[in-house]
Amino acid sequence: MDYNAEAIKMHQEKQGKIEVTSKVPVKDSHDLSIAYTPGVAAPCKEIHADVNKVYDYTNKGNFVAVVSDGTAVLGLGDIGAEASMPVMEGKAVLFKAFAGVDAFPICVGTTDVAKIVELVKLLEPTFGGVNLEDIAAPACFEIEKRLKKETKIPIFHDDQHGTAIVVMAGMINALKIVNKKLEDIRVVTNGAGAAGIAIIKLLLSMGVRDVIMCDRRGMIYEGRTEGMNPAKEEIAEVTNRKKRSGSLADALAGADAFIGVSGPELVSPAMVSDMAEGAIIMAMANPVPEIMPDLAKEAGAKVVCTGRSDFPNQVNNVLAFPGIFRGALDTRATDINEDMKVAAAYAIAGLISAEELDEDNVIPRAFDPRVAPAVAKAVAAAAIKSGVAQLKVDPEEIAEKTRRLAGAK
Amino acid sequence: MDYNAEAIKMHQEKQGKIEVTSKVPVKDSHDLSIAYTPGVAAPCKEIHADVNKVYDYTNKGNFVAVVSDGTAVLGLGDIGAEASMPVMEGKAVLFKAFAGVDAFPICVGTTDVAKIVELVKLLEPTFGGVNLEDIAAPACFEIEKRLKKETKIPIFHDDQHGTAIVVMAGMINALKIVNKKLEDIRVVTNGAGAAGIAIIKLLLSMGVRDVIMCDRRGMIYEGRTEGMNPAKEEIAEVTNRKKRSGSLADALAGADAFIGVSGPELVSPAMVSDMAEGAIIMAMANPVPEIMPDLAKEAGAKVVCTGRSDFPNQVNNVLAFPGIFRGALDTRATDINEDMKVAAAYAIAGLISAEELDEDNVIPRAFDPRVAPAVAKAVAAAAIKSGVAQLKVDPEEIAEKTRRLAGAK
Repeated sequence: MDYNAEAIKMHQEKQGKIEVTSKVPVKDSHDLSIAYTPGVAAPCKEIHADVNKVYDYTNKGNFVAVVSDGTAVLGLGDIGAEASMPVMEGKAVLFKAFAGVDAFPICVGTTDVAKIVELVKLLEPTFGGVNLEDIAAPACFEIEKRLKKETKIPIFHDDQHGTAIVVMAGMINALKIVNKKLEDIRVVTNGAGAAGIAIIKLLLSMGVRDVIMCDRRGMIYEGRTEGMNPAKEEIAEVTNRKKRSGSLADALAGADAFIGVSGPELVSPAMVSDMAEGAIIMAMANPVPEIMPDLAKEAGAKVVCTGRSDFPNQVNNVLAFPGIFRGALDTRATDINEDMKVAAAYAIAGLISAEELDEDNVIPRAFDPRVAPAVAKAVAAAAIKSGVAQLKVDPEEIAEKTRRLAGAK
Repeated sequence: MDYNAEAIKMHQEKQGKIEVTSKVPVKDSHDLSIAYTPGVAAPCKEIHADVNKVYDYTNKGNFVAVVSDGTAVLGLGDIGAEASMPVMEGKAVLFKAFAGVDAFPICVGTTDVAKIVELVKLLEPTFGGVNLEDIAAPACFEIEKRLKKETKIPIFHDDQHGTAIVVMAGMINALKIVNKKLEDIRVVTNGAGAAGIAIIKLLLSMGVRDVIMCDRRGMIYEGRTEGMNPAKEEIAEVTNRKKRSGSLADALAGADAFIGVSGPELVSPAMVSDMAEGAIIMAMANPVPEIMPDLAKEAGAKVVCTGRSDFPNQVNNVLAFPGIFRGALDTRATDINEDMKVAAAYAIAGLISAEELDEDNVIPRAFDPRVAPAVAKAVAAAAIKSGVAQLKVDPEEIAEKTRRLAGAK
């Protein structure tokens, strides 16, 4: 399928995909006196007296900045801030359509970590949350880490955590099919970029004990000297405790699950055949996965997930980020922490009942209307339980609100 | 009239006044493939190849950042970024309602000039223009000056230039009533803040030769040593060439026009009586003007303008900024220069025909639907003629578009 011509036509005809619209009428001078001067002075004064009232009188609590420097856009690489705008506007469209969140593109003309951090910090009065997007590793790690520490609003790098959460949702359900437990499996990942690192961390948070990460040089282990960086060093300290070395093929022999966020056709049928019985393959390279689903199945894989919408079990971030922000914003969470991410993964997985579950149905479809409300509810509950929520709103109310707002333009 | 309670209620019920909405549908996976991946890669690649195409495929060309640090909000002073949000959201509402411009609040958590300049520069890939708002003098002068030089998008400080333009529109028509010419009149202004400085500059651009600016110490003249600053020094060099000193009352004796952007009741009836025959009073202090219209009239003033909607001849910035940005954005102007400001003032004044013109009708009403289209057209023509337009669009087409977009939510 080639969507290029249609996408070009639509983007040109509409001149982009989002607009800023008014929630209030301005038809006469009375309207003007309420929405603007002199009436507007009243909410200004109240916020001046108590800065938290900015959440009551403005849209800040529903504004999310979609921040990118354009260095890692889709599979296109470093194409610059302007060229990333269509993606960031698209993200804003999805935020609104799936969970009623008002997201706005903030495409910045620098790749300097300190400048991006400073800019986002200065925008904290305006936005209720920040979604980092398509920022290359390792800059993305430093930016996220600093912003999480230096701001009081939730910061989320979707390329890392959105992907990791949906991968884990698929893994939870795939394990039910092969009748194995997270604690018992050996997982091999390939690709040490932003998503790869985040997946490892979430695997460990969720109880997986035997994880090996590979990059193009093969297995990563503590003490490896070539092709390392601080992120890989950190991973090496908490994975592959036997310090195995060798190729991806060596790592996969006997493994229960493969998670690829790497490149096309890097896994052969022979490598899949060498894996344990009931192998789980999550091959997210896009558009051409690490191994095509039919080949993986023929070689003995039981469950295969990809990033593509034209195969079963699509790992699609849209299952996660809208509900995650809905839950975080509505509890006024100061963070999106590990507990909230784990809760999101279980909420997504939990939508597929025991009866519905089969090898071609371990991840809900992107347009399943139950997803965002369920994620928002679970994330809100986890925010409250883990102590980062500033508002103790009933999570069921947030689910209800999400259902009401979904489908919004 | 007290709008406070109503404004509080509305702001709270709506949780602010603007939202971000989608111009495209996202109802199924086909929609998703066009608005987002994989289709979105096509416009991204085209912009990467030619950065100017960001105007074709995204909403950048219609995005205006409404930037404030909250240091000079309405008459409330330095109330901070968060407390300025209701005003900036209100401004966005007006931009949309009067000229279909998608404005977004950028309320920044700093008052440091260098940081604000840096931040706005980094946002240049996202926004087609910048409206500076409610930033205190003298920081506003430096920020505007640097941004005009260091960016390629139009920068406009509405508190300065919007006010100056509408004042001049009123002046043009008031002079017709008293049968005097700009070149011949003596104008006295009071108030050396952002608006006061901008008014002086526009008076001079438009051909007024005899201008004296006063502040709370009285007349400003070259060589005055007390209560000066760089902005006043600059004004002193080009006004009051006879270097007169003395009080505001001294300055007003024999003057043809008074323009106040100062404080309540600073002009007495006796001072107005001392002015020349056919005195023009523009008393913009809000909510209480420098002199109330009835008192000024009784003392001999021929035309009185104020900032209030409950008197005739309201100087309201909404007459200027929506059409100015419409004209600047649609010609992709790199600046909003003096020619464009002068054109806007004449366009606003020109809407009142010789038959309609009288002392209580020198400025069109805020909701006169002819205003924004006329301003957009005039500003576009001036942008093209003065060489700052990157697109030579027919100004009449821009007027037509403005008419079509006006009333948008």
